[in-house]
Amino acid sequence: MSAILESYAAGGWFRAADDGEPLLDAATGEEVARISSRGLDVAAMVRHARDTGGPALRSLTFHERAALLKALAKHLSERKEELHALSVRTGATSRDTMIDVDGGIGTLFSYASKGVRELPNDTVVLDGGLERLGRGGTFVGQHLYTSRPGVAVQINAFNFPVWGMLEKLAPAFLAGLPSIVKPASQTAYLTELAVRQIIESGILPEGVLQLVAGGAGGLLDELTVQDSVAFTGSAHTAGILRRHLNVLDGGVLLGVEADSLNCSILGPDVRPDDPEFDLFVKGVVTEMTVKAGQKCTAIRRVLVPETMAGQVIEALAARLAKVTVGDPRNPDVRMGPLAGLGQRDEVRKGVEALRASAEVVYGVPGSSLLDGDPERGAFMTPLVLRGRSGATEPHDVEPFGPVSTVLTYDGVEEAVALAARGRGSLVASVVTHDPQVARSVVLGLAPWHGRVLVLDRDDAKESTGHGSPLPVLVHGGPGRAGGGEELGGVRGVLHHMQRTAVQASPDQLTAITGRWTTGAARADSGVHPFRKSLAELRVGDTIGSAPRTVSLADIEHFAEFTGDTFYAHTDAAAAARNPLFGGIVAHGYLVVSLAAGLFVDPAPGPVLANFGVDGLRFLTPVKAGDAIDVTLTVKQITPRSGADYGEVRWDAVVTNQDGQAVATYDVLTLVAKTWPATPAQEA
Amino acid sequence: MSAILESYAAGGWFRAADDGEPLLDAATGEEVARISSRGLDVAAMVRHARDTGGPALRSLTFHERAALLKALAKHLSERKEELHALSVRTGATSRDTMIDVDGGIGTLFSYASKGVRELPNDTVVLDGGLERLGRGGTFVGQHLYTSRPGVAVQINAFNFPVWGMLEKLAPAFLAGLPSIVKPASQTAYLTELAVRQIIESGILPEGVLQLVAGGAGGLLDELTVQDSVAFTGSAHTAGILRRHLNVLDGGVLLGVEADSLNCSILGPDVRPDDPEFDLFVKGVVTEMTVKAGQKCTAIRRVLVPETMAGQVIEALAARLAKVTVGDPRNPDVRMGPLAGLGQRDEVRKGVEALRASAEVVYGVPGSSLLDGDPERGAFMTPLVLRGRSGATEPHDVEPFGPVSTVLTYDGVEEAVALAARGRGSLVASVVTHDPQVARSVVLGLAPWHGRVLVLDRDDAKESTGHGSPLPVLVHGGPGRAGGGEELGGVRGVLHHMQRTAVQASPDQLTAITGRWTTGAARADSGVHPFRKSLAELRVGDTIGSAPRTVSLADIEHFAEFTGDTFYAHTDAAAAARNPLFGGIVAHGYLVVSLAAGLFVDPAPGPVLANFGVDGLRFLTPVKAGDAIDVTLTVKQITPRSGADYGEVRWDAVVTNQDGQAVATYDVLTLVAKTWPATPAQEA
Repeated sequence: MSAILESYAAGGWFRAADDGEPLLDAATGEEVARISSRGLDVAAMVRHARDTGGPALRSLTFHERAALLKALAKHLSERKEELHALSVRTGATSRDTMIDVDGGIGTLFSYASKGVRELPNDTVVLDGGLERLGRGGTFVGQHLYTSRPGVAVQINAFNFPVWGMLEKLAPAFLAGLPSIVKPASQTAYLTELAVRQIIESGILPEGVLQLVAGGAGGLLDELTVQDSVAFTGSAHTAGILRRHLNVLDGGVLLGVEADSLNCSILGPDVRPDDPEFDLFVKGVVTEMTVKAGQKCTAIRRVLVPETMAGQVIEALAARLAKVTVGDPRNPDVRMGPLAGLGQRDEVRKGVEALRASAEVVYGVPGSSLLDGDPERGAFMTPLVLRGRSGATEPHDVEPFGPVSTVLTYDGVEEAVALAARGRGSLVASVVTHDPQVARSVVLGLAPWHGRVLVLDRDDAKESTGHGSPLPVLVHGGPGRAGGGEELGGVRGVLHHMQRTAVQASPDQLTAITGRWTTGAARADSGVHPFRKSLAELRVGDTIGSAPRTVSLADIEHFAEFTGDTFYAHTDAAAAARNPLFGGIVAHGYLVVSLAAGLFVDPAPGPVLANFGVDGLRFLTPVKAGDAIDVTLTVKQITPRSGADYGEVRWDAVVTNQDGQAVATYDVLTLVAKTWPATPAQEA
Repeated sequence: MSAILESYAAGGWFRAADDGEPLLDAATGEEVARISSRGLDVAAMVRHARDTGGPALRSLTFHERAALLKALAKHLSERKEELHALSVRTGATSRDTMIDVDGGIGTLFSYASKGVRELPNDTVVLDGGLERLGRGGTFVGQHLYTSRPGVAVQINAFNFPVWGMLEKLAPAFLAGLPSIVKPASQTAYLTELAVRQIIESGILPEGVLQLVAGGAGGLLDELTVQDSVAFTGSAHTAGILRRHLNVLDGGVLLGVEADSLNCSILGPDVRPDDPEFDLFVKGVVTEMTVKAGQKCTAIRRVLVPETMAGQVIEALAARLAKVTVGDPRNPDVRMGPLAGLGQRDEVRKGVEALRASAEVVYGVPGSSLLDGDPERGAFMTPLVLRGRSGATEPHDVEPFGPVSTVLTYDGVEEAVALAARGRGSLVASVVTHDPQVARSVVLGLAPWHGRVLVLDRDDAKESTGHGSPLPVLVHGGPGRAGGGEELGGVRGVLHHMQRTAVQASPDQLTAITGRWTTGAARADSGVHPFRKSLAELRVGDTIGSAPRTVSLADIEHFAEFTGDTFYAHTDAAAAARNPLFGGIVAHGYLVVSLAAGLFVDPAPGPVLANFGVDGLRFLTPVKAGDAIDVTLTVKQITPRSGADYGEVRWDAVVTNQDGQAVATYDVLTLVAKTWPATPAQEA
């Protein structure tokens, strides 16, 4: 008897009290491991996550969490051969394993990068701009996202035992939520190995990752308002989860990614000798055969113009005939077995159902295997069906294997209507080189899909394909696809957080968010803030300049010097006819250049560089003789991990002699953490 | 017998086949109207919305839809006296009516304004920036929001018959979704009058607004993947809706705002003679008495430091004693009746339940009424309870009337913990002048609330109070509050749309979104794009400049002229020590000023002004002797309704002699719709 998988629960590895159920190698039918969670205290796991993992995680800033994700990604990269070796037992070819293992690690790297670049070095995320709620500016509103003091339960499908875990873990972790991972039993040995590698690394704070190997009975009963469940799997199981009382009445958030009847559409513009024709056929065959078609994003429906059906089927058949099926340990095998014999039975049932309104037009039932045991391995060769006119089953029945159905359409509108008959899918693709086709198909498909791929000769080389969710793009779809949304960079993080509108005075809002709010007090200490290092600077530190008069000569000179001789700066008669100015005005770029001259402190100091400007708006024209001054205030301070400096965002307001705002913008600078620089910096 | 209310269905007014049920005046018990939907064909209504209303609405841009909302707001403003007059029959005082009727119209105005200012003059909304998906830049990703081809069903509560409809209608309308409104029967006569005014105005396209007066039996059975239900009301009814098969398995989106046990917290820093003490007491009394406490945002739990409980109760009692209760037709009445005798029974039951762990400390059961009929009007005087230590009922039981319970806390952490015992609320408030208290309480409350108000002496004058949802801020809350989110400006619009990740080549993405995408083809027609009016300009039109060498003299001169003598521009030795530059560099402002000189076409023409710059980033330092050029490309064209010009957003890239990007930014200009200007423009 093989070893029983262990759960990682409440700080230790837990072995079930019984012998468990066997998990079999997809190709050989040999026992890989056994699984059981009998005796597992799921309530203690939830408490451990809430009381230990959550607080430890939320004491870190987003940048600190991102750094841990990056370290974790590196650690798993170094040990991935071990994962690769075990992955073959799930029936995965080396291509399949790359998607699962390397794809999962890549997702960690992507989130580590997004966390640093798109989230603040803080624990609160601001959403949108300031809302002025009263004329006097004493009452303002700001939306912000905070971390839920809860637990993220993640229930994963059998097809991607590593990626499935990591793509849910990374955003939850960044969001400050501890995870309890429950993989599908079938391939849980691979998830268990990955969790073991993670726990052994010691990189993550204790309690932020726990594993249920085996059934998760009673886990949902422990959840409440601040907790969430993210589920990937069948619509049937999703329906059971939706009916749990804690979901219905207890405020537990449930996100679902369910298998869907994704389609790929061959554009009506594509001829057989266009490069798009081959791209289309290749895309369909790839989606049918990667993971033996066991992907929630696979192409189930192949939509082609009526006149192209014959040629498409012929081309699919020719390409599929080259796909060698067998034991993935043989390097010549292009497609491995299904995950198990039970899965194969389900696929066969699905094919039977499809045949009510579709004919099998390609399929080699008795074809030979490379090294596979046809009795004990869950092998299956690819099948193409062709749906009859008005067919309904292809829009309802999903054989979760290497099976696709060709359906024909007449005109772009019908193509979109057929796609919509899937009642919401994760992804659709359209292969076309015609921009008008792309526009009308994509805008028609979009409300029904979480992702749409447009494939043509221009992007094919770099395209990641129809079936691959990417960490930076949302993954999920409406309706039958479950209605959930995951990934999408920071979007996936924010789904785990609560958005709250805060109403307060500018001073209180500044205290709450740690970012200076328009209208809040400014602190003019007498020391120019450019003389302060990051360690000394405070939000609200300010410098108000003396006024400078802008003369007509200044404007003329600037025009001549820069070459910006736009008539509004140079031709009084023409400028007088401009409906917005009614006379000569200073260049906007002159105004901000002079403003910099007014606020800059020139001597070497902690301010290293101005690396950008955001949201510059010219509000009042500056005319010759106007006197402008500028007020610069520290709005946000973001130390950069692993660098000697950080970013400082300054609020800049240029006003004229009447106190009118002339221009407002944010100035972005890099400021040294200490000053004078430490010897390390000088080196 | 009074008149029966009519439904507005499938293009006409529908009168039920029976006599219906009576609806009674809250104060007098007289019959106001009768209500029934017997015989109403709800399936036809859904079809009408889908086939007529939706397509008409989605053929308009966001700006065109916003203009209709504005016209509608004006129309209702002009006829609001009629609504005011009828509102009194719901038990509303004139203050209550202002919140409902004028607040509803204000919400339309707010959405009209947001729609123009924050949404494009288009039908698709881009979400976030471009994601580069390959190194070569030929494969990119962009998230976008599209309108669902569905129906928005809105089920409203009895307490705000006008606002409740309009706050749901406005965002759905902007999003391109036709609405079917189903008000609570109790006060449906007021909603019916508002709908009648709207329909009679002819402002909205037919089919975008329909009304169910009476039961909506069977309506949810007609809904599918692209449809949504927005419900405001009791947790009990929400639970029934969540169990509908079309919600559980059919992909119908359900949003819920349920009554919640909102709290207000008196900060531990507040002393009885601080202004915050009075603000706190006043806030609680207002929330208890507005709409006779029948507000989902009312304060049910009054959290105060143990030592302050006595003084708070005393102050509440003193202020409540001045609240005159009676028939709202009497102008001296401060608080009207509950909506009906049934509601009052429910409140009384709730108070009985509370008394298991709380004592009544204020309440005048036999107090006299102003003009009210105590037998037929649903009058009730305000009640304050004080919870015993460890009380549970105040966190569970919600009497939907003028009833609040005082609970005591010890320290900020306990205050937050008590608030959280409501298991998710719409709103909380904290009254404090201490920024540290504000920060810790708000960040503690935030995960449990959709809105948090900080009240102090600084914002009190402009504060809109604890109980008022604002159109620009989100309204909703987690857990018991329903888990939904409404309003919040554009956020409320996007909730009605589908987010989709589109992957394509830059050219295809440009065609799909109508906005120029980095990497897409540029069109250099030989005509400078500054010579083209808005009508002639096309996305992708471009101008590439000749190069200009930036000399050391240019840098020195610019430093002297502007006063920006920062050492990196003026002191070679010091600049050499700068870790980022390693030598003299040109000012960023010099670079963009020279770039403008390179791309500007100076003669009078359709380009009227540069009103701003977005996302300016300096990527590579410019050193003396470098030659820079600039490419300016039309990225987005936004005609302004009601103006002779529109906005053009230009992509600007400054590069050096090595082809490195020196600076990237968007230039924002105003461009005349036609050129030469029409006589009207000249005038």
